[in-house]
Amino acid sequence: MSTQYQGVIPPVVTPRHADGSLDTASLKNVTQHLLDGGVSGLFVLGSSGEVPYMTNAEREQVVSTIADANAGAVPLIVGANEQTTNRVIEEAKKVIDLGADAIVVTSMYYAIGNAAETETHFRSIHAAIDKPIFAYDVPVRTHYKLPTDLLVRLGRDGVIAGVKDSSGDDVSFRQLLLAAKDVPDFDIFTGHEVVVDGALLGGAQGVVPGLGNVDPAGYRRLFDAAQAGDWAGAAREQDRLADLFEIVYTPNGRVSGGAAGLGAFKTALKVMGIIESNTMSAPMLSLNEDETTAIKVILERNGLV
Amino acid sequence: MSTQYQGVIPPVVTPRHADGSLDTASLKNVTQHLLDGGVSGLFVLGSSGEVPYMTNAEREQVVSTIADANAGAVPLIVGANEQTTNRVIEEAKKVIDLGADAIVVTSMYYAIGNAAETETHFRSIHAAIDKPIFAYDVPVRTHYKLPTDLLVRLGRDGVIAGVKDSSGDDVSFRQLLLAAKDVPDFDIFTGHEVVVDGALLGGAQGVVPGLGNVDPAGYRRLFDAAQAGDWAGAAREQDRLADLFEIVYTPNGRVSGGAAGLGAFKTALKVMGIIESNTMSAPMLSLNEDETTAIKVILERNGLV
Amino acid sequence: MSTQYQGVIPPVVTPRHADGSLDTASLKNVTQHLLDGGVSGLFVLGSSGEVPYMTNAEREQVVSTIADANAGAVPLIVGANEQTTNRVIEEAKKVIDLGADAIVVTSMYYAIGNAAETETHFRSIHAAIDKPIFAYDVPVRTHYKLPTDLLVRLGRDGVIAGVKDSSGDDVSFRQLLLAAKDVPDFDIFTGHEVVVDGALLGGAQGVVPGLGNVDPAGYRRLFDAAQAGDWAGAAREQDRLADLFEIVYTPNGRVSGGAAGLGAFKTALKVMGIIESNTMSAPMLSLNEDETTAIKVILERNGLV
Amino acid sequence: MSTQYQGVIPPVVTPRHADGSLDTASLKNVTQHLLDGGVSGLFVLGSSGEVPYMTNAEREQVVSTIADANAGAVPLIVGANEQTTNRVIEEAKKVIDLGADAIVVTSMYYAIGNAAETETHFRSIHAAIDKPIFAYDVPVRTHYKLPTDLLVRLGRDGVIAGVKDSSGDDVSFRQLLLAAKDVPDFDIFTGHEVVVDGALLGGAQGVVPGLGNVDPAGYRRLFDAAQAGDWAGAAREQDRLADLFEIVYTPNGRVSGGAAGLGAFKTALKVMGIIESNTMSAPMLSLNEDETTAIKVILERNGLV
Repeated sequence: MSTQYQGVIPPVVTPRHADGSLDTASLKNVTQHLLDGGVSGLFVLGSSGEVPYMTNAEREQVVSTIADANAGAVPLIVGANEQTTNRVIEEAKKVIDLGADAIVVTSMYYAIGNAAETETHFRSIHAAIDKPIFAYDVPVRTHYKLPTDLLVRLGRDGVIAGVKDSSGDDVSFRQLLLAAKDVPDFDIFTGHEVVVDGALLGGAQGVVPGLGNVDPAGYRRLFDAAQAGDWAGAAREQDRLADLFEIVYTPNGRVSGGAAGLGAFKTALKVMGIIESNTMSAPMLSLNEDETTAIKVILERNGLV
Repeated sequence: MSTQYQGVIPPVVTPRHADGSLDTASLKNVTQHLLDGGVSGLFVLGSSGEVPYMTNAEREQVVSTIADANAGAVPLIVGANEQTTNRVIEEAKKVIDLGADAIVVTSMYYAIGNAAETETHFRSIHAAIDKPIFAYDVPVRTHYKLPTDLLVRLGRDGVIAGVKDSSGDDVSFRQLLLAAKDVPDFDIFTGHEVVVDGALLGGAQGVVPGLGNVDPAGYRRLFDAAQAGDWAGAAREQDRLADLFEIVYTPNGRVSGGAAGLGAFKTALKVMGIIESNTMSAPMLSLNEDETTAIKVILERNGLV
Repeated sequence: MSTQYQGVIPPVVTPRHADGSLDTASLKNVTQHLLDGGVSGLFVLGSSGEVPYMTNAEREQVVSTIADANAGAVPLIVGANEQTTNRVIEEAKKVIDLGADAIVVTSMYYAIGNAAETETHFRSIHAAIDKPIFAYDVPVRTHYKLPTDLLVRLGRDGVIAGVKDSSGDDVSFRQLLLAAKDVPDFDIFTGHEVVVDGALLGGAQGVVPGLGNVDPAGYRRLFDAAQAGDWAGAAREQDRLADLFEIVYTPNGRVSGGAAGLGAFKTALKVMGIIESNTMSAPMLSLNEDETTAIKVILERNGLV
Repeated sequence: MSTQYQGVIPPVVTPRHADGSLDTASLKNVTQHLLDGGVSGLFVLGSSGEVPYMTNAEREQVVSTIADANAGAVPLIVGANEQTTNRVIEEAKKVIDLGADAIVVTSMYYAIGNAAETETHFRSIHAAIDKPIFAYDVPVRTHYKLPTDLLVRLGRDGVIAGVKDSSGDDVSFRQLLLAAKDVPDFDIFTGHEVVVDGALLGGAQGVVPGLGNVDPAGYRRLFDAAQAGDWAGAAREQDRLADLFEIVYTPNGRVSGGAAGLGAFKTALKVMGIIESNTMSAPMLSLNEDETTAIKVILERNGLV
């Protein structure tokens, strides 16, 4: 099977100044940090990029800034994140104009849909735009699990070019890998930072790791080891990255589930000197000094500062 | 306690032509039908109005059309339905410009928040706009239940002017009524069509019934009976309306949960000659001939056709 | 419609000595307290009686003790609480031998069933025993909501004699009341302490209130007011009981959800001098001094101490 | 780390005659089939053994029958499956008397507990019995996810000897593996049939596969390949077993979630001539002719018939 997309495609975080405004200089730094780390694509306007918290103007500015910094180096896979079909189509057209090479689309949310509507949703979006579409399975946010048979059917019909799986359902993930094995140009990515070795062993094409913002080179090494069939080496790198992932557990109930992980990634990038501030989008709290200190300890034992 | 808002405030459905485009003529008819039925307000851009399925341009057109048809007759309470704080504020400003007298705001969705963020969310929106805000508690869509103590605190501080409760949690609803009893100008509405008599007996100020699109006069009679202390009469009217509510169970698994209820309301309005088509927003299926026939039977036994 | 069961049927708490052993003397006191309060039945081995925490020997001792203390005064409705059909049947036979007049049965739990299995479950139990069966709808524990149409069908076929609804779903409760209106000898009880006025207004036959352990006479007054058509009086009594229900919110995160409410009932009964100790079944924590003091305040303002 | 338990430990199915009575002859055949397949232990009275559906007498008969057939060949790990602490202790003592070498214990169910009660639960059971205890994390049945930090603490304190993880949460599973790496004599098993290669790569000691009833030798080959560091070989065997696992999807909505998988295992064993009937415990439906035919096709393409 020839695949267009594979490897490490981190969901780029969105730096803000301490006053909450977009920090495009830091965003360019992050982009360069990721390219330097050997990523094979950039996922823009993802959950890790705080897309639900951005205004429409901010969304446009983020895509433009990353597109400039990337300068065609790797493909830009951009989230068209809206509640329902027609709103997604409008958003998708906007981000394609701004430089998206492919689009990422979730099932509907806030809306109460079903499998048939979800199928129509993806088919209608495919009919309206002319870029590859990745289905993003993230039931913790959409509260709807994309059915495996639907994904395979959409893949076989050329409606979607692949899947980013953040479902947390490893059984269905393996079954998707197996069921889609003979679907041409269909690329399956795990969104879970700590099970990448197993996902690649099972046949996944790559990973979209939020933690990849912090250590893109680590994920690249893990991917390369897997490609080379050095599975013990891949597992060792994965175990190290799983230890690094402990940064997301430093906030202790003070901040929301949404803010903890993303805040940890931004705080790590600040400690590493890549971004200016770890300020989160309103109304999320930013991590504090204690949490920053705890994160620094974890970065140090993993050789990142 | 003096209250500004009370009585029957239906969430206005959004008629579409068979080709899917907005049907503003039918929307005016619905508005007139509701005013004729004796409603005391109109809830615009609610879930029953299919707000998540509308493009931004359609949202504006719907508010303008209803504002025109209403011509100041009753207050317009308009949903500012967006994922997070800053997006809600932008949306709220837009609908206020178009004629909204008050704003309806849910907790964040797609985002993964907590109680503290939700409090900041409502306080930030209140700081940014100068119209009354109703909190809309609809965990079946947002997957977050607004805590009773938060609602009461926001009410006491003048951040919110009331609550539209579609939580399906009657215990917390009663406790909210009790806890908010001495909060001035704080109005609590149930969104559940079939428990209005009990809600009013418990002290609610009114109801926001999707079924009120079909039979606004019935809900007005129920409300008037309750106001007059005729609780047995209120319960009789409620039982009749609960029978009418059976129209939402006519679609049998074919359509989604989102489309079944709203589709039934629109189909009933079509049978009653008030709107032209029962077409749903994409990608929802519209009810078919069989379902329409079943709905007609229920309308007939309730004297509505 | 003639009904066999109606009124106030509290789920009797299970007192323990400080060392954790059953306190049958206190259990007799509670039983007498409930009879004195004017209850029309006793629900034995319910969730409020901590049935899942009792050994088999303790379950038998509890039924025997209450049967002795009751001495035929009111019907004993006893929970046959086991995971699946055949285990329920064995348990039901045991409690019938000990004096049960009727049996309370939930859907299966730990097992992963569906509607068809649930129907077989109830029909098989009915075929195996010769006492009335009440279906107990408690999805917060069984994680399965009993479907309304199934309950009505089982009622119409004489399989079940009624329903104890602790589903927290007031919409389906009203629809059950309406759908079962013409089913003979079918009695529907709400298990929710604070919405009894609305439930009775909607046609319920009675209530199974855990809080009724503390204030059986209050629930009796509420029921009598409703029977007399004095709905405003019923609502006033309900509001007072809803205030009394605040005792269940005195434990602040220290104890589990299961232990908080039941612990509050037992602590109130201890403060009132009806039981010796507020000790909970292992591994639940008992309420502490601070929580006891807070409960005493609420009891005092409600005239119970 | 020296570990006592590792490898393939299938949860033994419970054959019944067509009339629903236990089929001990077939149970002995299954046991022999598993031993022949090279399993390193037997998990008795597990969910796959239909333990919630058995009467107490049946539970005893199953343990005795397997103990006889096993004749000490491999360790017997037996479920003490009851709602709460004291009931589990009684059950554990019974199965230890019948030959259990170790006990499997879930968190409480039907009860509404929390982390503190769950810790007391495991510590109390450990204090009351003198056999190793495996924690069984199965939130799809108990509706409570065992916290990783609790499991590690219980392991470090010698309260539990390991974990059987059927949580479906691969992220927390990897973190458990990592966090427990230096806990002596602490063995972690995945319960998920199709992700065993990744689990072993991440450091798991073994697998408790329901599908292992059907193809124990396949799981043994997978385990041996992993032990030998032949990860590509392990993944190939896993992919084959994932294809075999398709038997559980042959029932199409007719039977419950509980009955589908277990019914498929029993039907496969019947087709393979190892058990007499695929009859399920009441009230579960057994798979029919069409489903049996579909399963036969899958068995054939995997070389099992």
